[in-house]
Amino acid sequence: MSLSFSKRMDNIKASEIREMLKLTQKPEVISFAGGLPAPELFPVEEMKKTLAKVMEEYGRVALQYGPTEGFEPLRVKILDRMAKVKVNNLTTDNILITSGSQQGLDFMAKAFIDPGDVILCESPTYLGAINAFKAYEPRFVEIETDDDGMIIEDLERALKENENVKFIYVNPDFQNPSGRTMSIERRKGLVQLANKYNVAIVEDNPYGELRFEGEIYPAIKHYDTEGRVIFLGTFSKVFSPGVRLGWIAADKEVLHKFVLIKQGADLQSSTLDQIAVYKFLEDYDIEAHIEKIKKVYKRRKDLMLNTIKEEFPEGIKVTNPDGGLFTWVVLPEHINARELAMKALEKNVAFVPGGSFFPNGGHENTFRVNYSNMQEDRIVEGVKRLAEVLKEALKEA
Amino acid sequence: MSLSFSKRMDNIKASEIREMLKLTQKPEVISFAGGLPAPELFPVEEMKKTLAKVMEEYGRVALQYGPTEGFEPLRVKILDRMAKVKVNNLTTDNILITSGSQQGLDFMAKAFIDPGDVILCESPTYLGAINAFKAYEPRFVEIETDDDGMIIEDLERALKENENVKFIYVNPDFQNPSGRTMSIERRKGLVQLANKYNVAIVEDNPYGELRFEGEIYPAIKHYDTEGRVIFLGTFSKVFSPGVRLGWIAADKEVLHKFVLIKQGADLQSSTLDQIAVYKFLEDYDIEAHIEKIKKVYKRRKDLMLNTIKEEFPEGIKVTNPDGGLFTWVVLPEHINARELAMKALEKNVAFVPGGSFFPNGGHENTFRVNYSNMQEDRIVEGVKRLAEVLKEALKEA
Repeated sequence: MSLSFSKRMDNIKASEIREMLKLTQKPEVISFAGGLPAPELFPVEEMKKTLAKVMEEYGRVALQYGPTEGFEPLRVKILDRMAKVKVNNLTTDNILITSGSQQGLDFMAKAFIDPGDVILCESPTYLGAINAFKAYEPRFVEIETDDDGMIIEDLERALKENENVKFIYVNPDFQNPSGRTMSIERRKGLVQLANKYNVAIVEDNPYGELRFEGEIYPAIKHYDTEGRVIFLGTFSKVFSPGVRLGWIAADKEVLHKFVLIKQGADLQSSTLDQIAVYKFLEDYDIEAHIEKIKKVYKRRKDLMLNTIKEEFPEGIKVTNPDGGLFTWVVLPEHINARELAMKALEKNVAFVPGGSFFPNGGHENTFRVNYSNMQEDRIVEGVKRLAEVLKEALKEA
Repeated sequence: MSLSFSKRMDNIKASEIREMLKLTQKPEVISFAGGLPAPELFPVEEMKKTLAKVMEEYGRVALQYGPTEGFEPLRVKILDRMAKVKVNNLTTDNILITSGSQQGLDFMAKAFIDPGDVILCESPTYLGAINAFKAYEPRFVEIETDDDGMIIEDLERALKENENVKFIYVNPDFQNPSGRTMSIERRKGLVQLANKYNVAIVEDNPYGELRFEGEIYPAIKHYDTEGRVIFLGTFSKVFSPGVRLGWIAADKEVLHKFVLIKQGADLQSSTLDQIAVYKFLEDYDIEAHIEKIKKVYKRRKDLMLNTIKEEFPEGIKVTNPDGGLFTWVVLPEHINARELAMKALEKNVAFVPGGSFFPNGGHENTFRVNYSNMQEDRIVEGVKRLAEVLKEALKEA
C-alpha cells in the first residue's frame, strides 16, 4: 500500500531535535534542551483545590461543549494579561482561546499563507513556528538581528524586494532561541513599516511577563495603530503548559477569521481546563506566582552564566537574557554544534543545535541552552561537562 | 487596513447554523439543534474524585508538557475501545491522541488534500467534516446512500470517473445527520473498492458504541486488510466532550505523518485531561456508564419517534436510528427547511436544516433532529410545536 499524501507533507519532516529529546528523557541526562518550565513551581496543591471547586460549581458545564471563542470569564481574565504588557484597548471580542500559542501559529499560516507566499522572520527564529508555518508551503526570508532584535533597515529592504509578503513573525521578548529582546524603538519602527507595506505582524509573546528586573516592555501590539498586530499569548510559561491554553488577541474582524478556523480545527479548547484556569486566576494571586517563577529563573540564569564564564574556553559568545528561559551560544565558525550535541550526549548533557532555528539553514556553529528546567546543582554540573566537550572540540579543530 | 488572507479563507464561511445555535441558547428554547450529550449523565462526582487523585498522584506531570503522541496509559485504554468495535490487531504505536475527533478530520485533509483533490463522502455527510475539509480546497463528490449507507455501485462509479480521489469519508454507525447505519456487506465492499482503487478510508466513528440493542457492528477498520482505514474515535459521546479528547487509529507509518502534523498544530492535547480520563477509566466502570447513556437515549429516541408518529402530518419520512444521537426528517420536496426553522424558532423550537449537510448543496427539504440533549417532557412539547409548524407549512404550500 502506498497512499498519496498532500504536497505539503514533503515539508513536514521529523525533527532531529525530537529524536534527540527522546534520548534526554533518561533521568541521568542533564537536559538544557527542552523549553520546559520548572515543574517544582507548579501550583499543584492550589490546582487540586481549584479542580474540586470547578466540579462542585461548574460540573456539568465543565464537561460539556462550550463556545468556540472560549469560556467568557477566562477571556475577561486574559484582558488583565494583555494590560500587563500595556495593551489596554481590547474587549473580549478581541480574544480567542487557543490550544497553546502553538495553535495560534498554525492558524496564522492557515489564514494568510498560500503556497509561495513570504513570511519575514528573525534570524534565528522559533523552531516551533517554522514547523507550523512550513505545512502551508511559504517562503521564509530571514531578517538580520542584533542585540536589539530585527534590524529595521534589513526589514525594509526585505519588504521592498519581496512580493507577497503576508506577515512578519516576531518573538520580541527574550526570544526563543536567542534570549534577545527587541528594543522599544525597533518595536515602533516595525509597526510603521508594517503600516507602510500593508502586512500583518505576528507577535508571539510567551515570555514578556518573565522580565527578571525593571519594567515589562510594552508589547508590539501596544504600538499598533491599525489593528494589524496579531498577538499570541499563553498560560504555558506563567502557569502550566499541560493545560494547553493560549490565546489570540487581534482586531475583531481578523479574530472572526480565526474563530472560523478554530471551529474546523478542533471546535474549541478544553472546557474543563478553561474553567480551571479561570477559577485559579480568581482564587489565587497569579502575580505573586509569576514573581516566584522569575526569582527562581533569574537565579538559575545567573548561575548558568557565571559558570559558563568560569568554565567555557575563550572565543565563545553567550547571550545574557533579561528574562525568559533561554540563552544562546555562538561558537567559532568551524565548530559544528550538531556534532557537539552528540558528544555532549555521551556525557549525558543535552542542548539544541542552533541550525534548526534558521529556516533557510546554515549557522551550524550555534546552540540553544535552557536554564529553567534544571535545578542548581545540575546546572553547574551540566555546564562543566559542556565546557569539557567544548575544550576538546576546540583542541581537535 | 485590509490584510490579504489566503485563498482558502474564501471557502471558510460563517455557518448559518452557528448563528442559529446562538439563538437556541435561551433557556426557553427547546433545542433539537446541537449534537450535545445529556449533561445530567456526566459523571461529575466521579470526576471530582478522579481530579483530586490526578493532582495527588501526577500533579507535576499533569501540569507539564507531555509527548505529542499522547499519555501512554491512556493510549493503552484506547485499545479497549477499539476492541469494542472489533479492531484487535493494534498496539499503542497505532494510536495518536487528538483534541476531539474534529482535529482528526482537520489532520486528514491536511495530510492528503492539495487544492482540487477529490473527497468522496456520503450524501448527506457530517457538517463538521465538510467545514474541516473545505479549508484545504477539495472537490466533494457525494455518493448516494440508502438505509444501508453508501450505495457501492455509485461509489465505484465515482472512483472510476474521478481522478485524484484521496479518500472516502464515512460515518458508518447512526450517521450524523441521517441516523442510518452502513451494513456489514457494504463495509466489506467499501474496503475492497478502496484496495482496488488505492485510496484511504476515513472512518469517523463517534457513536459506534451507542447501539441501543443487539451487538455492536464491527468497525470498517475491522475489515481493513492493507492498513488504509484511518479510524477517528472520541470520548465526547461516551464520556465528556468538554475534555476534548479523541484519537486517530491508523497504520504505523500513516500515524507517523499525523504525529508530525500534531506537533505543528498544537504540540499535544491537554496533559491534565488525558491523565484525568485515564484515571477515570482506571477507577470506574465505563461500560456501565455507556449502558446508562444508551438506556436514556433509547428512551428519548422512542419517545420522540412515537410523538412524531402521533403528531406529524402525512407525507413526512423520518429515520428510526438503532443508536446514536440523531434522527433525520425528509419533507415533501416543495417545503424549505430553512424557512421552517425560522418559523419553528418563533415557537421556541430549534433544529438544523439539512441543506448544510450536502457539500454541493440542494436537499433543502430535509432537517436533522437531536434527541439526546432534551429531557422527556421537552421532547414531547417540542415535537408538538414542530408538528404545528409543519402543518401550517403544508397548508400554505
